[in-house]
Amino acid sequence: MLHLSIQDQANRVTEEALRQAARAAAPILQKAQAGEARYADSQGWLNVDQWAGDAWLSQIEEIADRIKKTCDAFVLIGVGGSNNAARSVIEALQDGGGCEIIYAGNTLSPHALNAMLRSLKGKDYAVDCIAKNFETLEPGSSFRILRQAMAERYSPEEAARRTICTGTYGSSLEALCKREGYTFVPFPTDVGGRYSAFSFVGLLPMAVAGIDIRALVRGGREMALQLHRADAEDNLALRYAVLRNLYHRQGYALEMLACFEPQFRWFFKWWTQLFAESEGKDGKGIFPVAAEYSEELHAVGQYLQDGAPLMFETFLDVASPTDHLVIQPDGKQDFFDYLNGKDFWDINRAAFDATVTAHSQKMPCVILQMDAVDAYHFGQLFYFFQFACYLSGEILGINPFDQPGVEAYKKWMFQALGK
Amino acid sequence: MLHLSIQDQANRVTEEALRQAARAAAPILQKAQAGEARYADSQGWLNVDQWAGDAWLSQIEEIADRIKKTCDAFVLIGVGGSNNAARSVIEALQDGGGCEIIYAGNTLSPHALNAMLRSLKGKDYAVDCIAKNFETLEPGSSFRILRQAMAERYSPEEAARRTICTGTYGSSLEALCKREGYTFVPFPTDVGGRYSAFSFVGLLPMAVAGIDIRALVRGGREMALQLHRADAEDNLALRYAVLRNLYHRQGYALEMLACFEPQFRWFFKWWTQLFAESEGKDGKGIFPVAAEYSEELHAVGQYLQDGAPLMFETFLDVASPTDHLVIQPDGKQDFFDYLNGKDFWDINRAAFDATVTAHSQKMPCVILQMDAVDAYHFGQLFYFFQFACYLSGEILGINPFDQPGVEAYKKWMFQALGK
Repeated sequence: MLHLSIQDQANRVTEEALRQAARAAAPILQKAQAGEARYADSQGWLNVDQWAGDAWLSQIEEIADRIKKTCDAFVLIGVGGSNNAARSVIEALQDGGGCEIIYAGNTLSPHALNAMLRSLKGKDYAVDCIAKNFETLEPGSSFRILRQAMAERYSPEEAARRTICTGTYGSSLEALCKREGYTFVPFPTDVGGRYSAFSFVGLLPMAVAGIDIRALVRGGREMALQLHRADAEDNLALRYAVLRNLYHRQGYALEMLACFEPQFRWFFKWWTQLFAESEGKDGKGIFPVAAEYSEELHAVGQYLQDGAPLMFETFLDVASPTDHLVIQPDGKQDFFDYLNGKDFWDINRAAFDATVTAHSQKMPCVILQMDAVDAYHFGQLFYFFQFACYLSGEILGINPFDQPGVEAYKKWMFQALGK
Repeated sequence: MLHLSIQDQANRVTEEALRQAARAAAPILQKAQAGEARYADSQGWLNVDQWAGDAWLSQIEEIADRIKKTCDAFVLIGVGGSNNAARSVIEALQDGGGCEIIYAGNTLSPHALNAMLRSLKGKDYAVDCIAKNFETLEPGSSFRILRQAMAERYSPEEAARRTICTGTYGSSLEALCKREGYTFVPFPTDVGGRYSAFSFVGLLPMAVAGIDIRALVRGGREMALQLHRADAEDNLALRYAVLRNLYHRQGYALEMLACFEPQFRWFFKWWTQLFAESEGKDGKGIFPVAAEYSEELHAVGQYLQDGAPLMFETFLDVASPTDHLVIQPDGKQDFFDYLNGKDFWDINRAAFDATVTAHSQKMPCVILQMDAVDAYHFGQLFYFFQFACYLSGEILGINPFDQPGVEAYKKWMFQALGK
């Protein structure tokens, strides 16, 4: 499973202090393990089987198989929590199998939308409009133009067969599906977008992309088992949640998530959204940022090493090789003969170790080590961070499941658009 | 040209206070306009013509034309300042002309490097190894494996013809080129990577990708003219530099750069590197972060609206339409009939206005408006931010041209690799 360790040359939080804080937070863990009545409408994800049990998975796979047989591409219409989990996994793991996934519903830029429409030229495709709240402008408007594009390419019946909506039961989106003959699948009513990896929201696009969703769900389920059983002091998610709040109280306003594998680029967006939207309220919150190493060591690296002490750093580390590539001697007398015969896997690890050593002289470094990068371990990561975010929000004293601040700009926008 | 305005309902910095602070910083502007002796080895970019004059441009275009005739793809081997400017423009503006640009030298991950090598299969390509310091691990090791890949595909003579190095005069990289018959072009000795857009570093890859580099350089040159002539109070770069420092002194630790056009994704990385590496030293620095709107309104948007007051926000705004796409009525009674007949350009602008209105209730918002998104205006942006960063660093009291902190992890890494 995941392994958490600390490297901090100033030893700002000792193991004893961490255990003590974890014991103090035990009531929060116990409430989360039991499920709290006040969050009942947001905790459908706590039990992975509720929206990703075997019957659901069979249904998802059946729809995905149908799409894969008739489509080159699959348009995921969704914004924020409606696309981040799927995109994390697909961009990291898709290996040529499944449909090409095209993203829409996440912008209002006509330049970006026209590019998206051009990328569909000559391809057979299906669309999946994913919206918990079908009033949201980005997915709703993209769905419109995609229906128009489909009407030009397909008969009304064929277009309807190629249209899926992921919405809540009883929603106007479900009603639209009934009227038009679209396939309707459930967006869990009791799960917010950013916690929706283990449901139709995250799993259907992944399955269409050829991801092993059963392995992913198994990873989530096993992580859930572990986190629901472990006591406070040994509970990985509580330890992480407590630790980040201890550092926060010591004055670190930001958490920087870093990884040496570029395939985590889109996972960073999922993670950032999860924590920013869950914790950023009531004037509080640890602000989440992310860095792709080693590239960004040549960018934000300078700031981390020598700039203002704003952040602690959490490294996502991978224990077993993601691949191999050995540097051969070539006799050209460049500067790099000391690398002859070395595997990039080991060179990248040396860079990781060197970075942690250098940064831990300046700030607290937390290392979260996973065994491998595959669907199973993505499942573990999703559940781990969701559960940790819930606990962390409770420790911070905010509601980790609402997002009142997103409404402010919506109000002004609807006004500007004469709605 | 660019236009700068402020929206801040609390009016934290009045126009009079800004003018006063700009007057106080006039000596800094005057020194920058004159060129300071102490930074002589880092200010080759101040005069755009020094490394991007007509003779240089003709040479760049000649090499680019040769590559375009014989290559499907062009591998840009570079990290940090050696690829960010080119990538910003190419990812934003490339429209199917020129070679496909493939990025290497920016990672040590064998997974990512093998994917890069696979993407070259069956393609004719050339490589450009861009390194001011050829001891840097990422470009040096990628150059090795790309030379190996070329040796498998091409004769030694043909491989040499397809190899370009962008290095400093007198460097070991130049010596390697002489021994092996590679094309050698200059990395300006008096320009740091993050200030190198207007030189072979940025311009050759752009030209190979089919970008109008003469328009880009013209934009830079005209912006330079304006910033070198304008007095303190009316100098756009000084006003921006002063303003961000005033907000910083009021307690804002972060600057969030936001834009509603996703084509600025890689420009954000250029901008982030420029400011993080220039200012993050001596325990100081405004930490730069960026957000792609409207997508990330559904992520960090919540934090900005309701979270801790950590940041002020700078919006990159585009005045003239990037494209058009009109929403047609479709009679399906979805929620979006109020958008019928509306152009996404106007909808996106409404989202922009609504966001500025909402966020300016909470934090200072700075708007930098450019006329259009094209090579000419990218040239303006590059010069504007480079000059502003120089001024801002001087106001902050650090050296905006060195990066001592990047060396710390290099020391540990060389040790780990037995060098």
